[in-house]
Amino acid sequence: DFLHALEEVRPAFGVSETELQQCVMNGILKFGPNIERILSDGQLVIDQVKNSQRTPLVSVLLHGPVGAGKTALAATIAMSSEFPFIKLISPESMVGFTEAAKMSHISKVFNDAYKSPLSCVVVDSIERLLDWASIGPRFSNSVLQTLLVLFKKPPPKGHKLLILATTSQRTILEQLELIDSFNSAIYVPTISTFQALDSILVELRTFSDGERVHALRTLEAAVRSNPPAKLSIPIKKLLYYVEMAAQDVDKVDKFVQTMTEELTFK
Amino acid sequence: DFLHALEEVRPAFGVSETELQQCVMNGILKFGPNIERILSDGQLVIDQVKNSQRTPLVSVLLHGPVGAGKTALAATIAMSSEFPFIKLISPESMVGFTEAAKMSHISKVFNDAYKSPLSCVVVDSIERLLDWASIGPRFSNSVLQTLLVLFKKPPPKGHKLLILATTSQRTILEQLELIDSFNSAIYVPTISTFQALDSILVELRTFSDGERVHALRTLEAAVRSNPPAKLSIPIKKLLYYVEMAAQDVDKVDKFVQTMTEELTFK
Amino acid sequence: DFLHALEEVRPAFGVSETELQQCVMNGILKFGPNIERILSDGQLVIDQVKNSQRTPLVSVLLHGPVGAGKTALAATIAMSSEFPFIKLISPESMVGFTEAAKMSHISKVFNDAYKSPLSCVVVDSIERLLDWASIGPRFSNSVLQTLLVLFKKPPPKGHKLLILATTSQRTILEQLELIDSFNSAIYVPTISTFQALDSILVELRTFSDGERVHALRTLEAAVRSNPPAKLSIPIKKLLYYVEMAAQDVDKVDKFVQTMTEELTFK
Amino acid sequence: DFLHALEEVRPAFGVSETELQQCVMNGILKFGPNIERILSDGQLVIDQVKNSQRTPLVSVLLHGPVGAGKTALAATIAMSSEFPFIKLISPESMVGFTEAAKMSHISKVFNDAYKSPLSCVVVDSIERLLDWASIGPRFSNSVLQTLLVLFKKPPPKGHKLLILATTSQRTILEQLELIDSFNSAIYVPTISTFQALDSILVELRTFSDGERVHALRTLEAAVRSNPPAKLSIPIKKLLYYVEMAAQDVDKVDKFVQTMTEELTFK
Amino acid sequence: DFLHALEEVRPAFGVSETELQQCVMNGILKFGPNIERILSDGQLVIDQVKNSQRTPLVSVLLHGPVGAGKTALAATIAMSSEFPFIKLISPESMVGFTEAAKMSHISKVFNDAYKSPLSCVVVDSIERLLDWASIGPRFSNSVLQTLLVLFKKPPPKGHKLLILATTSQRTILEQLELIDSFNSAIYVPTISTFQALDSILVELRTFSDGERVHALRTLEAAVRSNPPAKLSIPIKKLLYYVEMAAQDVDKVDKFVQTMTEELTFK
Amino acid sequence: DFLHALEEVRPAFGVSETELQQCVMNGILKFGPNIERILSDGQLVIDQVKNSQRTPLVSVLLHGPVGAGKTALAATIAMSSEFPFIKLISPESMVGFTEAAKMSHISKVFNDAYKSPLSCVVVDSIERLLDWASIGPRFSNSVLQTLLVLFKKPPPKGHKLLILATTSQRTILEQLELIDSFNSAIYVPTISTFQALDSILVELRTFSDGERVHALRTLEAAVRSNPPAKLSIPIKKLLYYVEMAAQDVDKVDKFVQTMTEELTFK
Ligand SMILES: Nc1ncnc2c1ncn2[C@@H]1O[C@H](COP(=O)(O)OP(=O)(O)OP(=O)(O)O)[C@@H](O)[C@H]1O
Ligand SMILES: Nc1ncnc2c1ncn2[C@@H]1O[C@H](COP(=O)(O)OP(=O)(O)OP(=O)(O)O)[C@@H](O)[C@H]1O
Ligand SMILES: Nc1ncnc2c1ncn2[C@@H]1O[C@H](COP(=O)(O)OP(=O)(O)OP(=O)(O)O)[C@@H](O)[C@H]1O
Ligand SMILES: Nc1ncnc2c1ncn2[C@@H]1O[C@H](COP(=O)(O)OP(=O)(O)OP(=O)(O)O)[C@@H](O)[C@H]1O
Ligand SMILES: Nc1ncnc2c1ncn2[C@@H]1O[C@H](COP(=O)(O)OP(=O)(O)OP(=O)(O)O)[C@@H](O)[C@H]1O
Ligand SMILES: Nc1ncnc2c1ncn2[C@@H]1O[C@H](COP(=O)(O)OP(=O)(O)OP(=O)(O)O)[C@@H](O)[C@H]1O
Ligand SMILES: [Mg+2]
Ligand SMILES: [Mg+2]
Ligand SMILES: [Mg+2]
Ligand SMILES: [Mg+2]
Ligand SMILES: [Mg+2]
Ligand SMILES: [Mg+2]
Repeated sequence: DFLHALEEVRPAFGVSETELQQCVMNGILKFGPNIERILSDGQLVIDQVKNSQRTPLVSVLLHGPVGAGKTALAATIAMSSEFPFIKLISPESMVGFTEAAKMSHISKVFNDAYKSPLSCVVVDSIERLLDWASIGPRFSNSVLQTLLVLFKKPPPKGHKLLILATTSQRTILEQLELIDSFNSAIYVPTISTFQALDSILVELRTFSDGERVHALRTLEAAVRSNPPAKLSIPIKKLLYYVEMAAQDVDKVDKFVQTMTEELTFK
Repeated sequence: DFLHALEEVRPAFGVSETELQQCVMNGILKFGPNIERILSDGQLVIDQVKNSQRTPLVSVLLHGPVGAGKTALAATIAMSSEFPFIKLISPESMVGFTEAAKMSHISKVFNDAYKSPLSCVVVDSIERLLDWASIGPRFSNSVLQTLLVLFKKPPPKGHKLLILATTSQRTILEQLELIDSFNSAIYVPTISTFQALDSILVELRTFSDGERVHALRTLEAAVRSNPPAKLSIPIKKLLYYVEMAAQDVDKVDKFVQTMTEELTFK
Repeated sequence: DFLHALEEVRPAFGVSETELQQCVMNGILKFGPNIERILSDGQLVIDQVKNSQRTPLVSVLLHGPVGAGKTALAATIAMSSEFPFIKLISPESMVGFTEAAKMSHISKVFNDAYKSPLSCVVVDSIERLLDWASIGPRFSNSVLQTLLVLFKKPPPKGHKLLILATTSQRTILEQLELIDSFNSAIYVPTISTFQALDSILVELRTFSDGERVHALRTLEAAVRSNPPAKLSIPIKKLLYYVEMAAQDVDKVDKFVQTMTEELTFK
Repeated sequence: DFLHALEEVRPAFGVSETELQQCVMNGILKFGPNIERILSDGQLVIDQVKNSQRTPLVSVLLHGPVGAGKTALAATIAMSSEFPFIKLISPESMVGFTEAAKMSHISKVFNDAYKSPLSCVVVDSIERLLDWASIGPRFSNSVLQTLLVLFKKPPPKGHKLLILATTSQRTILEQLELIDSFNSAIYVPTISTFQALDSILVELRTFSDGERVHALRTLEAAVRSNPPAKLSIPIKKLLYYVEMAAQDVDKVDKFVQTMTEELTFK
Repeated sequence: DFLHALEEVRPAFGVSETELQQCVMNGILKFGPNIERILSDGQLVIDQVKNSQRTPLVSVLLHGPVGAGKTALAATIAMSSEFPFIKLISPESMVGFTEAAKMSHISKVFNDAYKSPLSCVVVDSIERLLDWASIGPRFSNSVLQTLLVLFKKPPPKGHKLLILATTSQRTILEQLELIDSFNSAIYVPTISTFQALDSILVELRTFSDGERVHALRTLEAAVRSNPPAKLSIPIKKLLYYVEMAAQDVDKVDKFVQTMTEELTFK
Repeated sequence: DFLHALEEVRPAFGVSETELQQCVMNGILKFGPNIERILSDGQLVIDQVKNSQRTPLVSVLLHGPVGAGKTALAATIAMSSEFPFIKLISPESMVGFTEAAKMSHISKVFNDAYKSPLSCVVVDSIERLLDWASIGPRFSNSVLQTLLVLFKKPPPKGHKLLILATTSQRTILEQLELIDSFNSAIYVPTISTFQALDSILVELRTFSDGERVHALRTLEAAVRSNPPAKLSIPIKKLLYYVEMAAQDVDKVDKFVQTMTEELTFK
């Protein structure tokens, strides 16, 4: 069921479908209980927004390491809501914008959302929207203030709004008191069990069964013999390493070598 | 008497009624003596503004934790004044404004207020109006200076003005010497007794009587067996947890679990 | 003689009389030797400006705690000069001005003053004119530089100028070397004797003689039994507390209670 | 010879005579060897500029405490040069100018100076031209850079230029490396001998001979009996104190009292 | 094979060939295994971009000391890809640009690249594109944010993009979290063996065989007798020293002397 | 041979001759081996630029104390190159320019230089071009970035460029990593031997032989008897002191006294 999660999603009219699907370029591999839990938590907030009269606004933060799959999961949950209005606010569509242009684009998406009775807005990579730089540190305070207000501002009477935001910089959001604007938070972890890794390699079909078993065994041994090392790899990085190995004459060796370096030298 | 407090309020002509009522979306639940005290303190300052010749300007600050109900209470007191001019200055209506636009909007509301013989201005969420960010820290000094002057500037001879402001960042206001601009301050606390919690759950009608009793008992035991933990939950968060629980098949369990996490892991 | 001090003042033509009188909204209560000394010091500098050929410019700073009566006293001295040109520069008339607009307004008033043979300019609340914020700290350097020059710049040959400025932030003015621009400084203290307090309550007529005597005795006992506490209350705050008490059914109790909290909890 | 020094000066055509004379409002009192030395040092640099072919540009800094007489002395030396071009660059004529306007005004004066074969430019109160504020600290870097270059830039071939600058903030000029731009520096001290003080009081004629002798004796005794205290008073402050005393019924007492406070409480 | 590496490269149509060749002004001297490894690593990423469906975007960072040959090698790898679109983003073509103009130029190149099915963009000297200055430190946050997004933004569906970036300031890129945007990193070292140095001198033909042997022996002895010293010289600096020596009457002596100073006094 | 060095220079057409000669107002006195070495080092880089194909760009930094003669020497070397294009970039011709205007002027000069087959650009007083202020510190990052790129950017194929820059702030250039942009550096020292001093005084002809011998002897004795003191005086300052002494009746005494103060009180 390589592209299974994605297939379940039938996007509604008026939705920025192409952009959202671009975020899930390599599908959602269901490699373990974490992914199931995240998707079912997503379903719960969708239900709350639909049903509750007292909480017409629900805002949720997906946070976790770089490349862990936050954007792909937020996009997947958003599409699965089948709300009539689903929009993506992403730094990728605002390259080179001035602060004022960013604020105006963000406000516009929210104002459009307020018009639909049932809306979902995905706010991707908050630290990038904020122009965060750890030296200084620097950030756009005007974008920050815009988000601080919009994440708490309820839609007009009778309307409902779900906000799904992502970040790989939770600590910074805490320091900026942006965390207080969210009703709840969902953690997206890296791949940390060999069982999950195995199930992914099965799905990807890059290695034959024999190659896969050999690769995992060697890797497990390598990790075990380098005491502080432990398995922890973001899905995005894993996909890159598998593809890089695929170019090599000796793909298993290349994969094991790159992964061993990654896991032991960090 | 779920919506009782609100119902008592009959807004006067020329008043931004809709906006003020939006602030009290879930009514004012009278869950204990704190709420009574806050509302009667509000009544006192309304009287002073009306009657005293020597203090034609009275400014009051409502402060307390995030979600404690500051905005709902300030809006309720303002509406209960039945003054001919009652206006709300809120960050939510100034999303994306420049500093200059904010200052001009704020000044305009005060200038309008000066024209009415008896006015009330609610200045919501001062830290947000100031674009406060704890990293830096950063804030709009021009908005700050505008507020520092407006909070102390008396209306023209023969006119009266009541200012009700809210903040969840009292310490910052002290550092900015903005505290000195207020004549008095009212503290809005979180819910901290099981009696208050019980009376709220009764009002909300989400749980049956049996469920409610069971939930409270379990929660009380959980708190007691986690020594440093104690009951302290803002009304806004409580409403969210109750609604979230309502989506779950086993709503009592979900409610007790979420509340226990909230109270013991913080 | 509640409004006595004010009545003595007959404002000259071309003077911003209304604004200056607004500053002395509740008159000048002559509650003790401090007030007499300040008013006679004011008379001396008025004489020096009028008579001396070698010091055609005299600049004086009135400084003291928030609410001590600085603005009311500066306005009273200015009006008592009966100079043909008397103007008030106040942050209240420059709400929302840009730095450039402030500088231009300030310069204009001084340039007008230079045209009159005998002028008095009241520069109220310097820290506010400077947009001072203690976090940062931040301030308008261009307004500061304007004041630094104008406070020392003599009027054209044959003309005379008296500058009366006020501040509750003397330390900051010292750090900014603005203190060096003044020829002399007058300290405006809080009310610190029960005799002064008594004479004020007599004048205000809010309490009957019996109530007043009772209130003062109770207050004196409360202060004495709380060792570090001592009587020190700015006139502006005292007026607010008296008015607040006047709204209460039991006004003496309310007054004593509020004052006791003020004096012992700080 | 109260106005003697000034009278010796015959300003040349094309010179801003009025402004320069305003700087010497109370003349130059020749109260001791320091004043003689400063004036003769001034004569020497005037000669060098006139005569030397190898140093067509000479720049001199007059520095000393606030009110010591720096501006009056610089203006006097400049006027005594009798150069065909003598101009004053003063913060007082640039109140409210933007940085750009200041730079442009300063450049213009120098460019005009380059056109005359023999020029003298007085640059008064450098710290004020720089908009120096010790909090921050803040200053106009563009004005600083302009001065750093202009103070070292020689006039066109065959032309000569003398620059006389003043400051009460020598240390800051050292930190800003502006000191390196000057060829030499002249120190302007406060009045520090009773003989100098006496000769000034004689000239001013405010006190009778008996009053003067009495005042000085009392003052000397007061200083002697307050060990760390010593005589040190800027001429400008002394003039203010004498004028203030002159308003008093008992002028000697007032003078002695004010001077004693000044000298012993600092 | 002095210009051998370069000759192997046949640039495709629509490619900024002249600029790229300017970067390899003195060819690629194959002086050891490091150079071979770098060029073959370059070949691997070219293949991955061409072949993989799951990683349509690959971004690689070439880092190493100033003058080590990073730009020449990145340009060589880019040209060897023979992709239909190859462009150079270099600070040299943006001298005097404003931040906005830089961002717009950078975005334009990437947008053009997205239009070609197979593209390669060389981003030269990131620290310079960022206007990095270690005092402050200062940098252009808007250029940084542009790069942070562009280095991770995949081209449109079906298109492929290879990004080759260079820097001599890896540590700064780590602090700015820009490192996380790259899929992999290639280290470009200085010349550190006498064998490599010898092979370069052979190629350059500046010295006769006898001169070369003599020069290397003397240099080796000098390094050995100055204990902490060791051979480490960037190719660009070596080329400068050889050319400088060539001007001298006694070129071997000059070369040995300059190199000895370089290696022992640092 | 007072103006000897200068006379040897015959400026080529299209060269800003007047400006360059203004930099050598008092000629180049050949007072010792240091001056010879600097001029011959200058000749070497001129040759390298002319002859080498591999290094079409050579950039050299002249650094040393304030007044040591850096600008005069750089101008002299530039003029001696007799290149068809020789231009001076100097802060003196950019007084009051905005950052943008400075950058544009600097770029223009370099762009003109690129058009000539053989060019020399003198970049005078880098710290001043950068608007460097040690308080802050502050500097123009855009001018810095422009220089960082231009000092390393080779001219178009077949063209040659020599850059001669000067600074009295080498340490700052190191911190700003601007030092790495230069191929080599030449140190310009102060006058530090009595032999050099003697040869200069001979050339200047201000003193008779007897006066000179007497002056030097007295000075040498003064230095010797003030242990930490030693001879070290920049040529520019020496010229000023000699001229100043020339105005005095007793010129030898004045010279010895000023020099002794300079050398012993620092
Ligand atoms: N179970 C999964 N969860 C998330 N992504 C998955 C999963 N399985 C496969 N993927 C693929 O992995 C990639 C995850 O990349 P994504 O951009 O979502 O990560 P990210 O955490 O947002 O990264 P970044 O921190 O850089 O923003 C996508 O291409 C997605 O299709
Ligand atoms: N007794 C009560 N006091 C205040 N609010 C109450 C009370 N009972 C119910 N509510 C409801 O609780 C919510 C309080 O939210 P409100 O926005 O006023 O909190 P807040 O303290 O202003 O939050 P924030 O710190 O985020 O600004 C409102 O929806 C209000 O209707
Ligand atoms: N003796 C007095 N001196 C000063 N003010 C008095 C006196 N008696 C009564 N008042 C009244 O007290 C008030 C003093 O307020 P005022 O604004 O002058 O204080 P302030 O020190 O300027 O306050 P702030 O620090 O806020 O600027 C005025 O309303 C004035 O009429
Ligand atoms: N010997 C003297 N030297 C200087 N000023 C004198 C002397 N005798 C009298 N004066 C008078 O003293 C005053 C000196 O003031 P001046 O403005 O020159 O002082 P300053 O040092 O420039 O002050 P500031 O530090 O405020 O700029 C002038 O009015 C001048 O006429
Ligand atoms: N093997 C090689 N690798 C790289 N450059 C080489 C090699 N052989 C010769 N060169 C030449 O050396 C020079 C390397 O300069 P280049 O500008 O690439 O260095 P760089 O590391 O980018 O320097 P910078 O740190 O200043 O940007 C080029 O002229 C190039 O032609
Ligand atoms: N041997 C010499 N070297 C340099 N300058 C000399 C020499 N002999 C005489 N001079 C004269 O000395 C002066 C040197 O001044 P120059 O402006 O070059 O110094 P600088 O080091 O650039 O000073 P700054 O640090 O202020 O920029 C010139 O007038 C020059 O004609
Ligand atoms: Mg993401
Ligand atoms: Mg609120
Ligand atoms: Mg006041
Ligand atoms: Mg002065
Ligand atoms: Mg490079
Ligand atoms: Mg120079």
